[in-house]
Amino acid sequence: MERKKIAIVGVGLIGGSLAIQLHEKKISSRLIGVDMSKEHEQKALELELVDEVMDMDEAIEASDVIILAIPVDKLVELLPALMDRIDKQIVVDLGSTKAQLVNVIKNHPKRGRYVATHPMWGTEYSGPQAAVRGAYENKAVIICNPDESDADALEWVRYMYKKIGMHLLEMEAKAHDLHAAYVSHISHITSFALANTVLEKEKEEQAIFELASAGFESTVRLAKSNPAMWVPIFMQNKENVLDVLKEHIAQLTRFKESIEKEDSGYLMKLIEDANKIRRIIK
Amino acid sequence: MERKKIAIVGVGLIGGSLAIQLHEKKISSRLIGVDMSKEHEQKALELELVDEVMDMDEAIEASDVIILAIPVDKLVELLPALMDRIDKQIVVDLGSTKAQLVNVIKNHPKRGRYVATHPMWGTEYSGPQAAVRGAYENKAVIICNPDESDADALEWVRYMYKKIGMHLLEMEAKAHDLHAAYVSHISHITSFALANTVLEKEKEEQAIFELASAGFESTVRLAKSNPAMWVPIFMQNKENVLDVLKEHIAQLTRFKESIEKEDSGYLMKLIEDANKIRRIIK
Repeated sequence: MERKKIAIVGVGLIGGSLAIQLHEKKISSRLIGVDMSKEHEQKALELELVDEVMDMDEAIEASDVIILAIPVDKLVELLPALMDRIDKQIVVDLGSTKAQLVNVIKNHPKRGRYVATHPMWGTEYSGPQAAVRGAYENKAVIICNPDESDADALEWVRYMYKKIGMHLLEMEAKAHDLHAAYVSHISHITSFALANTVLEKEKEEQAIFELASAGFESTVRLAKSNPAMWVPIFMQNKENVLDVLKEHIAQLTRFKESIEKEDSGYLMKLIEDANKIRRIIK
Repeated sequence: MERKKIAIVGVGLIGGSLAIQLHEKKISSRLIGVDMSKEHEQKALELELVDEVMDMDEAIEASDVIILAIPVDKLVELLPALMDRIDKQIVVDLGSTKAQLVNVIKNHPKRGRYVATHPMWGTEYSGPQAAVRGAYENKAVIICNPDESDADALEWVRYMYKKIGMHLLEMEAKAHDLHAAYVSHISHITSFALANTVLEKEKEEQAIFELASAGFESTVRLAKSNPAMWVPIFMQNKENVLDVLKEHIAQLTRFKESIEKEDSGYLMKLIEDANKIRRIIK
């Protein structure tokens, strides 16, 4: 496939890591960075994540493909306005929620040029300096509502993700948002809440620092994640996230009650049930 | 320090991993395995974790040091009976809760021969085949109530842990149990409950399997942990675990309410508070 001029809007963790892959896999002939933050743009140039930076209008003009790697609240604002201004360019987003976005653009005359995607990769860090080489490899990417995209746009986006080593799944945006609540969003909430629990109650921070084991670190590390990214995700996926969160509180309450009643048999059963996650996570 | 004949009671994940270190660091002249399970004993021999296996009476007779790496409910039963039968041997346990154990042995005439310890290391796997090389290195180990141990016993236990690369901390058993609730026990409960939440509600296991990201895996991996080890820990540390668990449920409820009310400002604050864990966990 011919190399394309690609603009990446949002050159942080997600966009920056993708930029590295696009360059290394020779998918891009030229990488253009666009970011609301001049500091991020400068950093992205310094780190050679992109070849040059432009403002949005110039970038639209200069690109074959526009990749949006910005928080989901910004996506919902930007996408319709952007679609008004494009010609034949392909527009792709990498957002963690899909239903509202797909809905907002549903009847746009240029809808076909847009492909809704969610590559299932991230870390708890943010900004261009958090970008990492080899991100996305061997991870899943979900393409939502593929029937609503033009065949050529879809074909190129599939090519891009395969070339960077991702395995492709397709589903409706609503199904995506439900599954994402389970396999990603709830993990972040539990981790944020765990951090607050420990920070609230354990006044001896030196003790946490010295004693924290690998188990604690792995359950709490997501608590370092960027609020500007996660607040809009939880808000846009409100119904699903609340469903899962209520269930999670109910499950924790079962643990609480079994310990209060010293009901070892029930506690044993709860943990044996949890062990069944081995079927799914090796 | 002269190499010693060491018996390890419980040749699973914890005892087996320690055995590897004792052998490699030339701390032991001979390693004797004791396990309730003949299968585990056989496996430990096959994997060369220990040099030979014996029953408890033989092992007491043949050893200079007896290391107990069994669940904390078994420890509370075994320790007083064992102390009745030793002569000058050093007895060390590796249990995750300390207050009840130290209390049960408090007035034993041989109390001085016993050193209460908790090396802060583990994985979600169990059994001799889960033993790993290099475990414990660069982790913390807590020695509880050191004043109640004989000077020579304490000296040797400190020597052993330093030699395998651990950094030593000392504290009272009650303080240990409080800190352990925060930095270890609560993480396991949240992870068990998260696994049950997902298994209960997400009926499409294939979707979890395909979509699960690194974030989900890291928050849920502890859910594979062994119930025979964890039920007694939660029961013995009931008061502290319940305190922390109630706070955790309260914190999750704040997330739930902020999402229900679509209060982005409050949700932002909750996440910014959680981000402060960066001060402690790099």
